[in-house]
Amino acid sequence: MVRAVVLSTARLVPRLVGKSVQNSKQILPAATCLLCHETRRDYHVQRGNLPFGGAVQLKTSSSSSGLMYARYLTTMAHKDIVFRQLFDGTSFTFTYLLADAKTKDAIIIDPVIEQVERDVRLVQDMGLNLLYALNTHVHADHITGSGEIKKRIPGCRSVIAEPQASADIHIKHGDRLKFGQFEIECRSTPGHTNGCMTYVWHQKGMAFTGDALLIRGCGRTDFQQGSSEALYDSVHGQIFSLPEDTALFPAHDYKGMTMTTVGEEKMLNPRLTKPKMDFVKIMKDLNLPYPKQIDKALPANMVCGVYDIKAAAI
Amino acid sequence: MVRAVVLSTARLVPRLVGKSVQNSKQILPAATCLLCHETRRDYHVQRGNLPFGGAVQLKTSSSSSGLMYARYLTTMAHKDIVFRQLFDGTSFTFTYLLADAKTKDAIIIDPVIEQVERDVRLVQDMGLNLLYALNTHVHADHITGSGEIKKRIPGCRSVIAEPQASADIHIKHGDRLKFGQFEIECRSTPGHTNGCMTYVWHQKGMAFTGDALLIRGCGRTDFQQGSSEALYDSVHGQIFSLPEDTALFPAHDYKGMTMTTVGEEKMLNPRLTKPKMDFVKIMKDLNLPYPKQIDKALPANMVCGVYDIKAAAI
Repeated sequence: MVRAVVLSTARLVPRLVGKSVQNSKQILPAATCLLCHETRRDYHVQRGNLPFGGAVQLKTSSSSSGLMYARYLTTMAHKDIVFRQLFDGTSFTFTYLLADAKTKDAIIIDPVIEQVERDVRLVQDMGLNLLYALNTHVHADHITGSGEIKKRIPGCRSVIAEPQASADIHIKHGDRLKFGQFEIECRSTPGHTNGCMTYVWHQKGMAFTGDALLIRGCGRTDFQQGSSEALYDSVHGQIFSLPEDTALFPAHDYKGMTMTTVGEEKMLNPRLTKPKMDFVKIMKDLNLPYPKQIDKALPANMVCGVYDIKAAAI
Repeated sequence: MVRAVVLSTARLVPRLVGKSVQNSKQILPAATCLLCHETRRDYHVQRGNLPFGGAVQLKTSSSSSGLMYARYLTTMAHKDIVFRQLFDGTSFTFTYLLADAKTKDAIIIDPVIEQVERDVRLVQDMGLNLLYALNTHVHADHITGSGEIKKRIPGCRSVIAEPQASADIHIKHGDRLKFGQFEIECRSTPGHTNGCMTYVWHQKGMAFTGDALLIRGCGRTDFQQGSSEALYDSVHGQIFSLPEDTALFPAHDYKGMTMTTVGEEKMLNPRLTKPKMDFVKIMKDLNLPYPKQIDKALPANMVCGVYDIKAAAI
């Protein structure tokens, strides 16, 4: 099936912008301007006359300003998923957008409030249907974007494991969340915080580890119910037990790395390859400074899975 | 073939650290300590007795400190490539490491001098054989890492298209560079600079666009022989002509995005979807500030494909 998406500000029918369309007769009530990929020329298209799947035999025109643009969106149909890693350079946080390219059902993991504009735009540009905004845990270094995303994308539900934090859905170990033909498994990986979850996408050999396992490192364990013993058991039991070629995507990296694998971390992680007793000592001796954003981020993240954080006056 | 890599500081044979080994009899002259993946226990291994490919039937020991560690490196054999996107947060530059997972032959695209330590370590940790350090162009915003990498990885050769810049290999449009079973095609895409190259990895549907095409943007065209007309023709002729699901990896992103596709940019790029005349006007009206690093970066990048930049006293 050939699809198109309405992109530019449409003077005639602004409510269509960002919408994915399959049937021009239903959704394009007025003359429209198309830019043809193949010929790179503008074409005027009469109402209901989009050349979906057919040969382009229309008159050329250059008067495209102020009209709607529609483009073929065949691209995403060639692959079965959409996967994007996004980065917030202030908190060094990675956000992940995952979607079924066919059904367009999508989830977002660990959105950051300052980046909601960018993320929502990407979701809309790609014509995705965002079902869930997941957090791997109650973050102490940035405010989650869940609340803002819910406000802008009605129907999107916030997800977290921590029972103390407000969210539309509270998940527990073993739960599965579906999007299109795909699903992710929720694995409880406490240690950095009590409510830390690792989200495993078995079908694609990926896992999103939050702060439990970082690239050649791990999250700190000295606040928020942190426990080095628990973290060690979580990583070895729930993450290192995955196939070695599983691609691991953490919530942060501070050195410009973007991913790792189970095999690499089992081999190269300077902390977690050590015996448990040594690991606990390493973590105890870190003497890390008090997290800068914690006093602002924690109370906000306890509620903004459901509330609009700006309106909540925190 | 099963490989291992020597990881920890080895009191007995420090020169082996970071080396990839295939034959324990040749390279491990002393008793060694292994951590078994499956059982997660330490094993003492006699000289030349690494259990490559065989069952682990060795005595347990906990006295691992100060000894060498070797680990199985079976992980990477499961997939046919190694692909890593790396980021320099100061210049917002992406560096790419590409390898044949089987032969371990690798190339690196657009390394940054400040990140050479990280990149070389990654190459060594993964047991890769780095053949080429490629630059998409003579950068004005950072100093290339080519020179430093060549110094640390003997045999690695620097590659660039710009005939004025020193490098081991000067490529031209249509050239192909091989690594293992793979190859990349060099496509000339001038406009940001005269010597800009886009590297296309047809076998994996990826292209590395340098500063010619950025995510929803493009490189500036107001210095270094820049030409908006040439850039427009380069992008439309050499990049937009690739299959629409080709994944595009730029040299920079300033908003935390990491990749795009040909289809997306043909549809969503606010500059390059415009007619050529409009594009030229947009670029002319940008009025960008003088690049901060250009006076330092340009002369350095003209020579450090072959010289050690630190020694060159630039």
